[in-house]
Amino acid sequence: MSQFDLSRFAINQITTPKWTLAEAIEGYARQGVHGIAVWRQYLDDYGVKAAVKHLHAADMWVASLCTSAWVNQTDAAGYRQALDENRRIIDQAAAIGAPCVVMVVGGVGSDKDLYAQHRRIHDALEELAPYATAAGVKLGLEPLHPMYCGDRSALNLITHANDLIDELGDKASGLVADVYHCWWDPNFEQQLKRAGKDRIVTFHYCDWLVPTRNLRDRGMVGDGVVNFAQIRGWLDEIGYDGPFELEIFSELDWWERDHHETVQIAIERCGPYVGPRIARP
Amino acid sequence: MSQFDLSRFAINQITTPKWTLAEAIEGYARQGVHGIAVWRQYLDDYGVKAAVKHLHAADMWVASLCTSAWVNQTDAAGYRQALDENRRIIDQAAAIGAPCVVMVVGGVGSDKDLYAQHRRIHDALEELAPYATAAGVKLGLEPLHPMYCGDRSALNLITHANDLIDELGDKASGLVADVYHCWWDPNFEQQLKRAGKDRIVTFHYCDWLVPTRNLRDRGMVGDGVVNFAQIRGWLDEIGYDGPFELEIFSELDWWERDHHETVQIAIERCGPYVGPRIARP
Repeated sequence: MSQFDLSRFAINQITTPKWTLAEAIEGYARQGVHGIAVWRQYLDDYGVKAAVKHLHAADMWVASLCTSAWVNQTDAAGYRQALDENRRIIDQAAAIGAPCVVMVVGGVGSDKDLYAQHRRIHDALEELAPYATAAGVKLGLEPLHPMYCGDRSALNLITHANDLIDELGDKASGLVADVYHCWWDPNFEQQLKRAGKDRIVTFHYCDWLVPTRNLRDRGMVGDGVVNFAQIRGWLDEIGYDGPFELEIFSELDWWERDHHETVQIAIERCGPYVGPRIARP
Repeated sequence: MSQFDLSRFAINQITTPKWTLAEAIEGYARQGVHGIAVWRQYLDDYGVKAAVKHLHAADMWVASLCTSAWVNQTDAAGYRQALDENRRIIDQAAAIGAPCVVMVVGGVGSDKDLYAQHRRIHDALEELAPYATAAGVKLGLEPLHPMYCGDRSALNLITHANDLIDELGDKASGLVADVYHCWWDPNFEQQLKRAGKDRIVTFHYCDWLVPTRNLRDRGMVGDGVVNFAQIRGWLDEIGYDGPFELEIFSELDWWERDHHETVQIAIERCGPYVGPRIARP
C-alpha cells in the first residue's frame, strides 16, 4: 500500500461530500486510510447501528463526530432546543466510538452582541460538560477562523479555547486544533504548548490558499502558504500522539473532484506529516 | 445639508474606486463630507501638487494616505526596495497633510515562515520610524483581518499592533483600527482602551456581511453584524476625538454602484456614529 505510515491519519468526511458514509468508509479503507471523522448528516442517513457495524467491519477508527448544533439563539426556547440537540449528538458520538464531538458553537447572534455570544458559548459548554463526561465523550472545542465569527462560530482564538478548557476541565473537554483556522495566529505555537499533548483530541490539516476565492475555498496540504513541517515540529516537541485529520471545505475544487483521486492525493500530501507510528489505544 | 455633524467623518477613497482623486474630492465635498483618505495610485495619477491645491480649494482634510508598500520580500534587494518605496510614500503623506501612512505590511513570505515575516515587519517599522518622525507623519499600524495573512498582512491582531507601537514609540507610530478587521476579536475593547485616545490615528467603519461572498465583500454600515453603537461607546469612554473613516472594499456591490449614491448612503448610515462635533486642530 502506501509508502507512509498512515496509522494516525484520518480523513474528515466533509472532504469527500459526494460520498455517503458507507462509500467514505470503503473509499478511505481501500487506500489504507482507517481513520475517519464522521459528519452528522451522513450518520443520520446511514443510521447509527449500520454505521457501527460497517466501521467495525472495515477496521475503521473514528477521530471525531462533526459537529455540534450552534448555540447562538437569542430566544430561550431555541437555545434550550440546541442544548437538547447537542445531548443527542453526544450520545451518537458515544455510540460510534468517537472520542469527541467537534463543537462549532455558532456566530454572533441576531442581537449583534459578541460578548453575549461568548457568554452563551460558555454557559452551554458548562451545562453540557457533565453530560459529555458521563457519556465518555469530550467536548472538542475548535476555534474557527475569525472569518466565521459572523455565522458559524464566535470562538475564534486558540487562546480563548484553552481558557474555556481550563474552566471546563480536561475530562469533559479538549482542543480540536485546525491549522487552517489557527496558522496566522502569533500565539499558535505557544497555545499548542500550553495545551500539551493530552488536551489535543484531534489535529486538522488543511492549507490556506492564495488567493482564497470564497469562505469555502480551503486547500489541499501543500497547495497554500501553511508551513506544515514547522507546525508538525511543535506537536512533536510536546509529544502529541493523537490523530492527524485532513479536512477540506472546497466548493470550487475538491468537492467537485472524483473522491478516489482526492484520497490518493491526500495520502501523498499528508503522508510526510502524519507519521511516525504511535500505537493507538 | 446633512442632519448629521460630519466634521469628523472621512470617506476612504477605495470606497469609490471609479472616481479619480479629483472626482472623489468633488463628490465627497458636494454632499458635505470634507474628510478623505487618499490612495496612492490616485495620488500618483493626479500629482501631489495638483492634489494639494484641489484639497485646499475644496476645504478637505486628509485622514490618512493608503497604503505602504509590503515588506514581505525574502530577498534582501526586494526588501530594501520596499523600504525605499515606503520613504517616498511617507514624503507624499507629508506633502498632502496626511497625519499617517496606513501601514499594510505584507503577508507571509514565500518562505512560508510567519515568524520571519513578523521579524521583517518589526525591523522595517523600526528602520522607518525615525524617517517618519522627521517627516511629521506617523506609521499607522493597521491590524488586518486574519484572512489577509496569506497575502496582504501578517499583522492581524490589535494586540500585536499595540505591542509594536509600544516599541516604536507614540511619536513615530499610531494605531489604525478598523472595525471590519477587529470586530470578532475578544480583546478589541480592551486593546482600544490600552491604546487610549491619542494612539488611535484614525478609526475605520465597515460592516461584516453574512454571508460574505469573497475576501473583498465588505459591507456598508448597518448591512452586517457589527455593533457600531457598542464600539462607538468604547471610543467615547476613552475620549477618542479623531476621524471616523468609511472604508469599503466591495467588488460585487459598492464598487459597481453610482458613487454619488454611495456617498449619500454612507452619510445616512455612518451619520449616527460619527458625531458629536469635536473641533479639528
